[in-house]
Amino acid sequence: MKIKKDELIENINTVDPQTKRREFLKKGVVLSTAAIASLGGIATNANAKYKIDKNNLPPNNPAWGLKWGRDTNHDPYGSPSKFEKHVVRREVPWLTADKKASVSFTPWQDLKGIIVPNGLHFTRCHGGVIDINPKEYRLLIHGLVKKDIILTLEDIKRYPSVSVIHSFECAANNGMEWRGANLNSLQATHGMLACSEVTGVPLRTILEDVGLKKGAKWMFPEGSDPAGVGRSIPIEKVLDDAILVYAQNGEALRPEQGYPVRLFLPGWEGVMQIKWLRRLKFDTKSWMVREESTKYTMLTKDGHALMYNWAFSANSVITSPCPERDWRDKKRGFIMIEGIAWSGKGTITAVDVSIDGGKTWKLAQFTSMQLPKAVTRFAFKTKWNKNSMMIQSRATDDTGFTQPTATQLNNARGKEGIYHRNAIQTWEVKSNGEVNNVHIYES
Amino acid sequence: MKIKKDELIENINTVDPQTKRREFLKKGVVLSTAAIASLGGIATNANAKYKIDKNNLPPNNPAWGLKWGRDTNHDPYGSPSKFEKHVVRREVPWLTADKKASVSFTPWQDLKGIIVPNGLHFTRCHGGVIDINPKEYRLLIHGLVKKDIILTLEDIKRYPSVSVIHSFECAANNGMEWRGANLNSLQATHGMLACSEVTGVPLRTILEDVGLKKGAKWMFPEGSDPAGVGRSIPIEKVLDDAILVYAQNGEALRPEQGYPVRLFLPGWEGVMQIKWLRRLKFDTKSWMVREESTKYTMLTKDGHALMYNWAFSANSVITSPCPERDWRDKKRGFIMIEGIAWSGKGTITAVDVSIDGGKTWKLAQFTSMQLPKAVTRFAFKTKWNKNSMMIQSRATDDTGFTQPTATQLNNARGKEGIYHRNAIQTWEVKSNGEVNNVHIYES
Repeated sequence: MKIKKDELIENINTVDPQTKRREFLKKGVVLSTAAIASLGGIATNANAKYKIDKNNLPPNNPAWGLKWGRDTNHDPYGSPSKFEKHVVRREVPWLTADKKASVSFTPWQDLKGIIVPNGLHFTRCHGGVIDINPKEYRLLIHGLVKKDIILTLEDIKRYPSVSVIHSFECAANNGMEWRGANLNSLQATHGMLACSEVTGVPLRTILEDVGLKKGAKWMFPEGSDPAGVGRSIPIEKVLDDAILVYAQNGEALRPEQGYPVRLFLPGWEGVMQIKWLRRLKFDTKSWMVREESTKYTMLTKDGHALMYNWAFSANSVITSPCPERDWRDKKRGFIMIEGIAWSGKGTITAVDVSIDGGKTWKLAQFTSMQLPKAVTRFAFKTKWNKNSMMIQSRATDDTGFTQPTATQLNNARGKEGIYHRNAIQTWEVKSNGEVNNVHIYES
Repeated sequence: MKIKKDELIENINTVDPQTKRREFLKKGVVLSTAAIASLGGIATNANAKYKIDKNNLPPNNPAWGLKWGRDTNHDPYGSPSKFEKHVVRREVPWLTADKKASVSFTPWQDLKGIIVPNGLHFTRCHGGVIDINPKEYRLLIHGLVKKDIILTLEDIKRYPSVSVIHSFECAANNGMEWRGANLNSLQATHGMLACSEVTGVPLRTILEDVGLKKGAKWMFPEGSDPAGVGRSIPIEKVLDDAILVYAQNGEALRPEQGYPVRLFLPGWEGVMQIKWLRRLKFDTKSWMVREESTKYTMLTKDGHALMYNWAFSANSVITSPCPERDWRDKKRGFIMIEGIAWSGKGTITAVDVSIDGGKTWKLAQFTSMQLPKAVTRFAFKTKWNKNSMMIQSRATDDTGFTQPTATQLNNARGKEGIYHRNAIQTWEVKSNGEVNNVHIYES
């Protein structure tokens, strides 16, 4: 409170992500004002639209200020505004043969920040959403352990827990783009992604208690839904950062996320993060089940299938504008391009943005914390003069990996893929402000 | 993946908060196994309860695994499990004279992690919850600015945004304890607290664009609900970290949190974070309105009222066990004491736990990130042999401040307070596992 006011006014900073704030405050460093110097225009334009009558302030006193509102506790478990009913998960109707083994997508076009509310977290099921009574829940741990055991939910909750923020992604996210389905929708192209704070017990804590036998190199987690989904997990990942999760964004897991307990493997394919978990078996070798042999493998150019490609590489997409949230109602002048970047292998260190289809690139700014294996927010300020643009983003993570172009990815993997597509996405902005999903291939 | 498995098994760590993980991974440091060495007991006890038939695995194949689940997208905006219907906000019926100017409390006894879901974020209203049509929303900025302006919601959203995680707290949180109301409920004693990721525009960004005049030392934000709540905010806070917030935990603000735009002042009293914001006026001096003169001042021992005490000092409370979630069904043996700590002035640096009413203290472990002006999770492992305990937690933040005892706080402030109560809270655990809210005063 002892800083001189005028100094503060002259030394403001546009972007103030939480990870930088502590350093900023500690060092007393004043960041550049350059980013904000050319923002003028909103105030002027806005002022032109609305006449201010100084004898009648505030200017509007609409119905909502003239009568009592609803009771404070009218909705003990709340819900969004009635004006936000369009913000929901959606299916791609032709994608799956039935409604049980299907997927509903996260509406990234309407989201801000890095936390996805539980009600909007994408859902992928193989046998439908089941309702487990937590009092009847049991987890069997068996195979190469010192003693087979069965744990109740209360047993699991007695172990020390951790709470961490991480992304969740289906291996098929963006998969419809391999062969150019050209869905004109961000929700359809990148909606099999979410990010949440999860709470649960590190599996290594339970395994220290139970005792692994020598030779336990793989773990088989199995769900108790009618599909009984399972995958083989290498023991190194289990002991690194695998978590038995029972809470998400503060509250109990939702049924469609595996209530009451799911496996969570930060940064790895969603299908491995078994929901409605009923057992963990340990053995010397992997099980070669359906979801890692005929499914969730990557068809390569020469026709071979690549197995055991678990962690996601760096990826990003522009969320504003996008086909669902275009610039048709936008004025000329400065405008923000915003997006998300994520990596299953580390922390996002840089995002570049292009407005000319990848010919030139400029560094975007981070507008959220940059956490490992989590969604990170970026923004890039540009001018739009009702001109057409080809806008793209490309992310780099702390492994040094940078997202490939669609051409580079096709050259490396062929065009018959389904999984792990992380090519640079292009949105075409037309001069009327319409935004379309387009594919650019270099010759 | 090149770490030797046996090394990993021998060098596991109980608690792995996100802030430490990056250092851990970078340095290759292997943390202590001491914390987990004495966890044995859960596995043994669990195994004793359930007989495992090796010819019939997994052990239970209940109804939920024998028929298809619900359609994947049966609930496009999802909701919690039907087994979690008890997790809701609640009122203290006698606390307020009516249901419009009232408060509903966050159910911390059922929450995990640091993010509070939007539907469970406590609500304090002065004239009820109103529904604003975002297309009709207007924000007037006037007074000592270069030009008065009116902004629409779209105007506000065009400015560069930030997303940060911070706590929210009502100044009256824990206030009923001053005179020992002795509500036997964590939800009632500490439920006017929440923590969320918020997204919006730093006010300094807008003010750089609009232009403050010399002499603008205070800002008056006013809500458009029927109560028209307003407070005087010093310009230093406005230019430090005030945010015009339009999204919370990824989605649009909820109506009860001020949809479509509220003011947010990290770490300061909730009543200042004006909801349904309709104007910001700038002037040379404060306005001395009701909510900073007859209300939201602190009565001191000598009968004077202390004004302008904005930021919250360090505070903490144990969330498990608590009166609503006791140990009556718990077995003898090791047991986790879990809780939350927060400060409006900085970052929590330490939490101590006592099981003997404050005679001796031991350091708890953090089980979440420690972010500035945000809720932080801690846990403490102890043994419970069906003995009675007086359990307490006390938090320290990076200003060096440590939570006072109830006696110390009363000695400093008297007993007639309502606001900013952050005394060490005591839960009595009885030998039968019941937990009660008790007050300990040193002679």
